Amino acid sequence: MKEERQIIVGRHAVSAVLSSRPEMIDEFLVASDENVLMTQQLLDTALKRGVTVRRVPKSYLTSLAGLAVHQGVAVCLIAGGSYAPLEEIISAAKAAGNSALVLMADHIQDPHNLGALIRSAAAAGAQGIIIAKDRACQLTPAVAKAAAGTLNMIPVCRVTNLAHTLEQLRDEAGLWSLAAVPGQERPPWEQDLNRPLALIIGGEHQGVSRLLLELCDMKASLPLSPQVESLNASVAAGVMLFEIIRQRAGVPEHKPAACIVDL
Amino acid sequence: MKEERQIIVGRHAVSAVLSSRPEMIDEFLVASDENVLMTQQLLDTALKRGVTVRRVPKSYLTSLAGLAVHQGVAVCLIAGGSYAPLEEIISAAKAAGNSALVLMADHIQDPHNLGALIRSAAAAGAQGIIIAKDRACQLTPAVAKAAAGTLNMIPVCRVTNLAHTLEQLRDEAGLWSLAAVPGQERPPWEQDLNRPLALIIGGEHQGVSRLLLELCDMKASLPLSPQVESLNASVAAGVMLFEIIRQRAGVPEHKPAACIVDL
Repeated sequence: MKEERQIIVGRHAVSAVLSSRPEMIDEFLVASDENVLMTQQLLDTALKRGVTVRRVPKSYLTSLAGLAVHQGVAVCLIAGGSYAPLEEIISAAKAAGNSALVLMADHIQDPHNLGALIRSAAAAGAQGIIIAKDRACQLTPAVAKAAAGTLNMIPVCRVTNLAHTLEQLRDEAGLWSLAAVPGQERPPWEQDLNRPLALIIGGEHQGVSRLLLELCDMKASLPLSPQVESLNASVAAGVMLFEIIRQRAGVPEHKPAACIVDL
Repeated sequence: MKEERQIIVGRHAVSAVLSSRPEMIDEFLVASDENVLMTQQLLDTALKRGVTVRRVPKSYLTSLAGLAVHQGVAVCLIAGGSYAPLEEIISAAKAAGNSALVLMADHIQDPHNLGALIRSAAAAGAQGIIIAKDRACQLTPAVAKAAAGTLNMIPVCRVTNLAHTLEQLRDEAGLWSLAAVPGQERPPWEQDLNRPLALIIGGEHQGVSRLLLELCDMKASLPLSPQVESLNASVAAGVMLFEIIRQRAGVPEHKPAACIVDL
């Protein structure tokens, strides 16, 4: 799961990347002394797609481009992270026994949230994180940044069908499933979480999907002030993860904190 | 604590706002059919200051500007939120008795974190949040967005000297102080948090300052996987806040969830 920076130069190549992989662009560099009209359309596209734009001296682009012809524009790509196969997470969860802990993110959209969620799951010694392949934030540079160096410490797997994967986690790794939901379910500290668990956190807009909720063995709600509907998704995940850790702390030989090192 | 959108048009006025209050700018609008050379310098400044830029038809600017002359540029300002006096928080904390809970953010820099922190504190029924006036994120539009509508539900006070304010909270409201720190302190669930509390959360880079730590009555660390140094600041705050709520849940008549409504 390496992080690397790749430079792509020239109007044609830059235009292709802006169209096909804007979420992988760390920044769009444009020569401040280049003919504005020639780069204006690319600049407009970059701005429209929410890409960070930086004006730099032409000499800087020339040094980045080496022998390639930059034509006044370049993009820096960062691969945020790579994905692990589901089998890796299932086998780690099986090996962790009673302290198994897998996080399933049900369509998280915001890179800050996904990054913080990865950081929390790594800190809690979870064996892995499952994300959805479609309509969900992927492992972009912004996620890597928000994960603060933890992206390479925990396997992240993306799947097309979360419900099917939850069934696999149950059937193949023996995990119970616990969904964090807003509302009137019992708080997590009134439930026994000292068992192999898949914790499901809902996305920012729709929460945990109906289909996943129907599959879940347990549901928990945090008691909130009546005016406030819900917590930030990564905060809710953190509270649930560390309630699980609290309940398990009584069983030192199963301390999940050691799992990453052990496996 | 109202949120409102203010439009400022014209090159001179826009330039002044870009220099003096870039953090209050929601977006910089530039007419796509305006003479590029006339607006290029403003566009460069906006990009350099990290302001979101949007190209719009000139007719859109004309409709926003009304009778004023927009010269092809406009900025939209959003006041993120206004500040409460410290006395308001102190008196609410005194009235809350044993369930008093005040959050002190020791130089949080990131608007997502400050917003999530405000949302969590409001959800936990805290009486207020204290932030530093300098070298810390203020109540900007990005914070209001991350707070997801909770910014007007909880008083936020900014002070020049957090240590002095912590002493006031102790002397005038009778609060104990608890700092969340990475490291080897006892976990929060092994400490008695069922008392009037000021919870101190450190900033992303330096954690809780030495001076505040010396003043603190209690310190708590969350047990983390050995490879992971710390949690995201707003996640750590959320975990601590809901551990406090968990411990207090046994005393229904002191349920902090009702505080905002009661006071």
